[in-house]
Amino acid sequence: MTEYILPLQKLIEEFSRLPGVGQKTAARYAFAVLDMSEEEAENFACAIVNAKKNVKECEICGNLTDQARCVICSDEKRNPEVVCVVEDAKTLMAMEKVKEYNGTYHVLGGAISPMNGITPADLRIKELITRIGTQDIKEIIIATNPNIDGETTAMYLSRLIAPLGVRVTRLAYGVPVGADLEYADEVTLLRALDGRRDIH
Amino acid sequence: MTEYILPLQKLIEEFSRLPGVGQKTAARYAFAVLDMSEEEAENFACAIVNAKKNVKECEICGNLTDQARCVICSDEKRNPEVVCVVEDAKTLMAMEKVKEYNGTYHVLGGAISPMNGITPADLRIKELITRIGTQDIKEIIIATNPNIDGETTAMYLSRLIAPLGVRVTRLAYGVPVGADLEYADEVTLLRALDGRRDIH
Repeated sequence: MTEYILPLQKLIEEFSRLPGVGQKTAARYAFAVLDMSEEEAENFACAIVNAKKNVKECEICGNLTDQARCVICSDEKRNPEVVCVVEDAKTLMAMEKVKEYNGTYHVLGGAISPMNGITPADLRIKELITRIGTQDIKEIIIATNPNIDGETTAMYLSRLIAPLGVRVTRLAYGVPVGADLEYADEVTLLRALDGRRDIH
Repeated sequence: MTEYILPLQKLIEEFSRLPGVGQKTAARYAFAVLDMSEEEAENFACAIVNAKKNVKECEICGNLTDQARCVICSDEKRNPEVVCVVEDAKTLMAMEKVKEYNGTYHVLGGAISPMNGITPADLRIKELITRIGTQDIKEIIIATNPNIDGETTAMYLSRLIAPLGVRVTRLAYGVPVGADLEYADEVTLLRALDGRRDIH
């Protein structure tokens, strides 16, 4: 490994904390910072501190926001009777790209994972139950990830919520649009087969 | 494009200034910052500002340093009679990995490039001539990049320096033509060093 002078070495270490960034890429980023003007570097540093300081969780749904309530919870055109439960804000943003969904969200902050020691108490499940108890919610759409932890969380939530008289649904499983069936895994194909629909 | 809240959007913009980072990767990095503790985010920001503030050019050779003189120029075991001229500090570090070279360096800060409007006056060439005039230098090894701008710079320097009675050599074409010295492997650099030739 190359030896860099200390301030540069430290910056490279910081960059290499980012996901998917190794030593070489981190060094490339660090040199890019050295090529910036002092003002640009300060803006960069400020953006990091500001994002960390000003981005909070929406007091209602847990979505990222710089206000008390997120843009979706503050939007009166959104239907508060339908709540889509997602693991994190990134999934919420992916759902928003669809532009078809007009309900609101609830961000859990993860999924139940016995392997990683994440229990229901670590997630925003209590907040969800409170919302169901205080707001007029008709349907909970569970959009946790289609993996073991996501499935566990979906099962847990449905058992918890169904007795409260709220309709609980789950995103459909199937083959992704635009994918090649040849490379789809067996479980996905089985689910797609189970969930087949009539063509009208 | 997804719409993010302002502090997040700003951070994503900052990350996307880094080389080879697009919107998606920048968003991934920004979310990683949100996942950091406040202290970690502040350390990251500090590392950027500190690197920019404390990394300077060595007063002798132009290499990166946080002192007045770089580690190589301060090292009495290095031979000051041989000076390897490189375009930038990244190339210098690549040369150092060879561990065979015991001379000193001179960092030009780029290469002559009529296309990009970079003239000899924009580079640390005057400083090199001053070094030749004041220090006892026996050989100048030109290690500019093996591309058009690097070749132009090498030719310019050899014509400038040869009349001063100093031996001027150029790295052998062991390095692949058109490549960037920064990414050359150690063995290739070593061969290139061994096969260096006089410029006539």
